Amino acid sequence: MLDYKLLEALGAVVDQAGFERGAQALGLTQSAVSQRIKLLESRLGQPVLVRAPRIAPTELGRRLLNHIQQVRLLEHDLLDYVPALGEREHRLRIALNADSLDTWWCEAVADFDTGQPLLFDLVVEDQETALTRMRDGEVAACLCATPRSVQGARARPLGGMRYLPVATPGFLERHFPGGITPDALTEAPGVVFGSDDRLHQRYIAHHGVTAPFPHHLCPSSEGFHRMIRAGLGYGLVPELQCHDALERGELSLLEHDTKIVVPLYWHYWRQGGQVLEALSEHLTRVARHWLTDLSESERHEPVPPT
Amino acid sequence: MLDYKLLEALGAVVDQAGFERGAQALGLTQSAVSQRIKLLESRLGQPVLVRAPRIAPTELGRRLLNHIQQVRLLEHDLLDYVPALGEREHRLRIALNADSLDTWWCEAVADFDTGQPLLFDLVVEDQETALTRMRDGEVAACLCATPRSVQGARARPLGGMRYLPVATPGFLERHFPGGITPDALTEAPGVVFGSDDRLHQRYIAHHGVTAPFPHHLCPSSEGFHRMIRAGLGYGLVPELQCHDALERGELSLLEHDTKIVVPLYWHYWRQGGQVLEALSEHLTRVARHWLTDLSESERHEPVPPT
Repeated sequence: MLDYKLLEALGAVVDQAGFERGAQALGLTQSAVSQRIKLLESRLGQPVLVRAPRIAPTELGRRLLNHIQQVRLLEHDLLDYVPALGEREHRLRIALNADSLDTWWCEAVADFDTGQPLLFDLVVEDQETALTRMRDGEVAACLCATPRSVQGARARPLGGMRYLPVATPGFLERHFPGGITPDALTEAPGVVFGSDDRLHQRYIAHHGVTAPFPHHLCPSSEGFHRMIRAGLGYGLVPELQCHDALERGELSLLEHDTKIVVPLYWHYWRQGGQVLEALSEHLTRVARHWLTDLSESERHEPVPPT
Repeated sequence: MLDYKLLEALGAVVDQAGFERGAQALGLTQSAVSQRIKLLESRLGQPVLVRAPRIAPTELGRRLLNHIQQVRLLEHDLLDYVPALGEREHRLRIALNADSLDTWWCEAVADFDTGQPLLFDLVVEDQETALTRMRDGEVAACLCATPRSVQGARARPLGGMRYLPVATPGFLERHFPGGITPDALTEAPGVVFGSDDRLHQRYIAHHGVTAPFPHHLCPSSEGFHRMIRAGLGYGLVPELQCHDALERGELSLLEHDTKIVVPLYWHYWRQGGQVLEALSEHLTRVARHWLTDLSESERHEPVPPT
């Protein structure tokens, strides 16, 4: 078998982003940790870490880290039977889209209780990268818009996130005095999450606009919403995020009958252990409080969530 | 002089993350854009783009992009005199910390008006990377906690962001029944922005705790705040973000007299043109609405903002 003491040293140095803090986390001296990593590298005949410009695992190191993570999830299942095994905390690394994290996610997991401390290691990713991370085993689960699961994983539909085209009333007056025309959509500044944000493109394409349009780039879900609230642009915002501002009249809809629904699927390792299985059950059950029914017509048009 | 048509093609392909969309943005065919980039590469004798796994500039490509950005900023100043030059929009690429973007930033820039459309290209970065990006010329300005400016740039103090240690009342009852003791701080789950989040470490070190502590990792400012609101952990949240929840009693302070102030400095290119200069003046003037006076004692202890 692999020498897990050595792997644990690798894990600690990467998690803590340094030898000194990694050693501290393990209750070891820095030189003991360095020796373990050197020993691991000499046994494998390859480096597991790059030291500069910042500490990062090599390709091999990443594979070892994934392996440790999987072993830990499996070990956790043993704890119910052999509590003396000792490790009390359970860590789950999960990739999810920014809009979920900044809206419904925290409330949805808040009442999930395994009776043991569960710690989340969240990674914000667009869906393509999230699925690659699942495939490489870097995350134990991910939220994304694709129903098709990767090898070794299951996918469950959670529901849809509804996006509404919104702006401040003042912005609408200035930029859309004649309504939502193709010309106005080509002239008015939009707010876009990233240069591959297909949601906005899909919205304007619906109005026949495929030309480039002026836009701010804002890679933060809450920041995105705030840019629109501040009157800097218009954009597609999750209903969960803009509902209150719409009620208060601080934001207005560009159109009343247009919405885009992005489906969200929960992907998780099959061999991820009982906690991950239970969390998956839990999410499937509670997500409908925040998400819409996927039987809506948009079901078959997945768009990457931002 | 350089052939700016070729550089423009490079810029469009990178900005739009693809040849097809880059070509669309320039109103050219895809093959025309490919040819321009090939010509650029053959003239320079080196690739300017890597094509896989996704389109990204090479080191040389990045330098060229920085150069275009600087030239554009300078061109913009000419527009006042020669409006016929044509380019109407002004883009500013700015790196800033997640907490600023998710709290005061949008409101602060909302009333900045140059009389011409100004579009923001925001990049969320921790302070070290932000300064490297300034140094490499990738961003025209950045917000960070370091007063020392990089070469070719100026730095202005904007004020301090005040962070408060908070949790839900229920969380405090469960995890801190005997007050904020070192033991409780070592046992209670914290919420940390990233593995190099020194703010939390500084807070617990103030209580004599240097041991590892259980923590969630959540790399989103709003998500961070929501995890704490959902009772998943305690942590240091900008006062701007938790003020209302504290008023409503949904969050409580761990201690009444402890706060950490992170100074924020605005760094911007000296040769960045009039719009950047005016924005810098504007921010220096308005930021005090949201930020505290930097004469507070914490001034000389910069901590990376998250």
